[in-house]
Amino acid sequence: MLFRERTDVGEAKEMFLAAIKGMERTELLPATSSIGRVLSTSILAPRNVPHYRRSAMDGFAVRSVDLIGASPTNPVMLQIADDVLEGTCAPVNTGDYVPDEADAVLMMEDTISIGDMIEIRAQLHPGKNVGAIGEDVRKNEIIFNKGHLLRPCDIAVLASLGISDVKVYAKPVVAIIPTGNDLLPLPGDDVPPPGKTLDINSLMIGEYVEKWGGIARYCDIVPEDKQLIEDAIRSNLDADMIVVSGGTSVGDKDYVPAVVEKLGKKLVHGVGLSPGKPTALGVADNVPILCMPGYPAAGLVALFAFGKPALKKAGTIPHTPEITIKATLSGKIMSREGYVSYARVILEGDIAHPLMTAGAGILSSIAKSHGFVIIPENVEGHEEGSIVDVVLIE
Amino acid sequence: MLFRERTDVGEAKEMFLAAIKGMERTELLPATSSIGRVLSTSILAPRNVPHYRRSAMDGFAVRSVDLIGASPTNPVMLQIADDVLEGTCAPVNTGDYVPDEADAVLMMEDTISIGDMIEIRAQLHPGKNVGAIGEDVRKNEIIFNKGHLLRPCDIAVLASLGISDVKVYAKPVVAIIPTGNDLLPLPGDDVPPPGKTLDINSLMIGEYVEKWGGIARYCDIVPEDKQLIEDAIRSNLDADMIVVSGGTSVGDKDYVPAVVEKLGKKLVHGVGLSPGKPTALGVADNVPILCMPGYPAAGLVALFAFGKPALKKAGTIPHTPEITIKATLSGKIMSREGYVSYARVILEGDIAHPLMTAGAGILSSIAKSHGFVIIPENVEGHEEGSIVDVVLIE
Repeated sequence: MLFRERTDVGEAKEMFLAAIKGMERTELLPATSSIGRVLSTSILAPRNVPHYRRSAMDGFAVRSVDLIGASPTNPVMLQIADDVLEGTCAPVNTGDYVPDEADAVLMMEDTISIGDMIEIRAQLHPGKNVGAIGEDVRKNEIIFNKGHLLRPCDIAVLASLGISDVKVYAKPVVAIIPTGNDLLPLPGDDVPPPGKTLDINSLMIGEYVEKWGGIARYCDIVPEDKQLIEDAIRSNLDADMIVVSGGTSVGDKDYVPAVVEKLGKKLVHGVGLSPGKPTALGVADNVPILCMPGYPAAGLVALFAFGKPALKKAGTIPHTPEITIKATLSGKIMSREGYVSYARVILEGDIAHPLMTAGAGILSSIAKSHGFVIIPENVEGHEEGSIVDVVLIE
Repeated sequence: MLFRERTDVGEAKEMFLAAIKGMERTELLPATSSIGRVLSTSILAPRNVPHYRRSAMDGFAVRSVDLIGASPTNPVMLQIADDVLEGTCAPVNTGDYVPDEADAVLMMEDTISIGDMIEIRAQLHPGKNVGAIGEDVRKNEIIFNKGHLLRPCDIAVLASLGISDVKVYAKPVVAIIPTGNDLLPLPGDDVPPPGKTLDINSLMIGEYVEKWGGIARYCDIVPEDKQLIEDAIRSNLDADMIVVSGGTSVGDKDYVPAVVEKLGKKLVHGVGLSPGKPTALGVADNVPILCMPGYPAAGLVALFAFGKPALKKAGTIPHTPEITIKATLSGKIMSREGYVSYARVILEGDIAHPLMTAGAGILSSIAKSHGFVIIPENVEGHEEGSIVDVVLIE
């Protein structure tokens, strides 16, 4: 009945990720709807930027030849005009078209205006302060590589190039299967009867799936019945990933890992993760299956440790580092030897207060904590006053 | 014509933020639509969690009195039954209702099954492995404080408490006013005529505003005309913040800062920010106004340095740290003395390659770079091989 197996978190994750193929489906989207999406093809610039000789400064467009020999002791005077000819200059603002006859732009700050003339006390290189055609982006150069995650600034770049549609990877569909005889579906305006629990895990998993770039497919609650669990998993093997919540411990009715083994391959059951030990990982029909503990806090940790990287890989979504801040512990944190421990902490400025009620079943520990101090297997814990990295709970 | 003023970035930001009041408008939202929103009132738990005595383990509900004296040499046998009476025990799974007569749960792992009996070799404290009513969340305790940013896990906590609606701060409305005679509105499927530029800044600003939790109000392009700029700003003083793009340098037609001064107070014009020096900051009718350079790269830096913290304050949205990673520079980064420099870098694993074409007008520098190395005023730059913090461009 005990977990004989207890796979290291790192090893378990590696096995799970190795079983996941990246996304192959793509879709064409308006560029303005593609923020947070991942390019499935590289994008070439369809035109030059700038597409005209552009002034890089506010000042005067000049012929540099007119300024040869200019110096403080031998200033040159130019007439302000609409056109640039020998002895004239034309005012330009940053970004303006530089008249064809001009080959340089003199900064406003380097001139002295005297009526409709300007006095110049220095020479200027040809090309100075003039953005050449294609200087910024050259037509046909790769502007974004395949696999690039599109940011708001990138959308602006695409718009400037007249690119209105982009080909991106489809979002991975994640089927969420809650199991348990004691579960009731949300909403739960009334207090559930004793022994019954609201299925909040589906909502929690689904909202994180959407946040991480997937599509949540919410499934009905499945009773603790081997055949029904098998049916539920089997009917979702068209998804890109399956998360089963509950039924993965060592109790009489914890059928989920056995069902996964029957349908495909159980890679791991029991990991060195605290909370989250009963997590099982498997794959069936190339679909990764995360079986996470039904207790919300343990489930959340399993979701962060395995679900997030798996979803990113299933969606070919680049990894983004977690937001981590340094803080000083106001108390000791104990950890469990041989386990990666996710200790919950409350942040108050740069002080991290360990949360005492940190059991897997303690829902409030999620609500009250700002982040996790993740303690590796081989570290015993942290003393009061230690400076630790706190990974914010997103 | 030169910027006589050049305010430190830190000082400028402090002055700007001091002029911004937090959000006062609130709205009632379904809890499931409130992720990323900020609570405008604290939330009290309307009920106990658990609301029944809950088993914390898979095992057997027992009367601890039955196990007094149990030891390896003196094991106690209990009959497995549906009810817990003297000498009987009832199987329970994690989360199950613990029968009223039982006062402890024996872990499955600590028993030996012999037919319909179990053998127990240790005593058990009363209450062991039984979650008391209200142990997790006590009715009427504060579960979330006013000002809390709601995360997916919090929505699950709200659902478990039967809370279906939450009162949150309204999103700050940010009016975006592009200025410039050479600007053309998007989309720009055709190459604009020479001297004309597509207004990509509005899109860039708007998408960041939405990402940071605001509502973008896109305004028409305003020509370089003092009265028209004044009209545009005046007609948006009902917004929570105004961002004006362009017209803030020292050219003839850079009227924006003067208009801000006329309508309210210009706090700063010219900051020690590179790129982004021409940034102006002001306030009119209690509405903060960010006047950012029209050049996209400089505008983006001004938006990150001033627009983001201002929007967060205007929306009473808690600060979230930037995602920062350590990297080794593959080349030297120069900075401008007296300026906070945002040097753009390309990341390749943990190597940061400085981007050479880093002018304010260089659009591709945004597309190609992954992050900024932010160099303080008093630092001259970084040598090749230095380990630096790279702030990812979100």
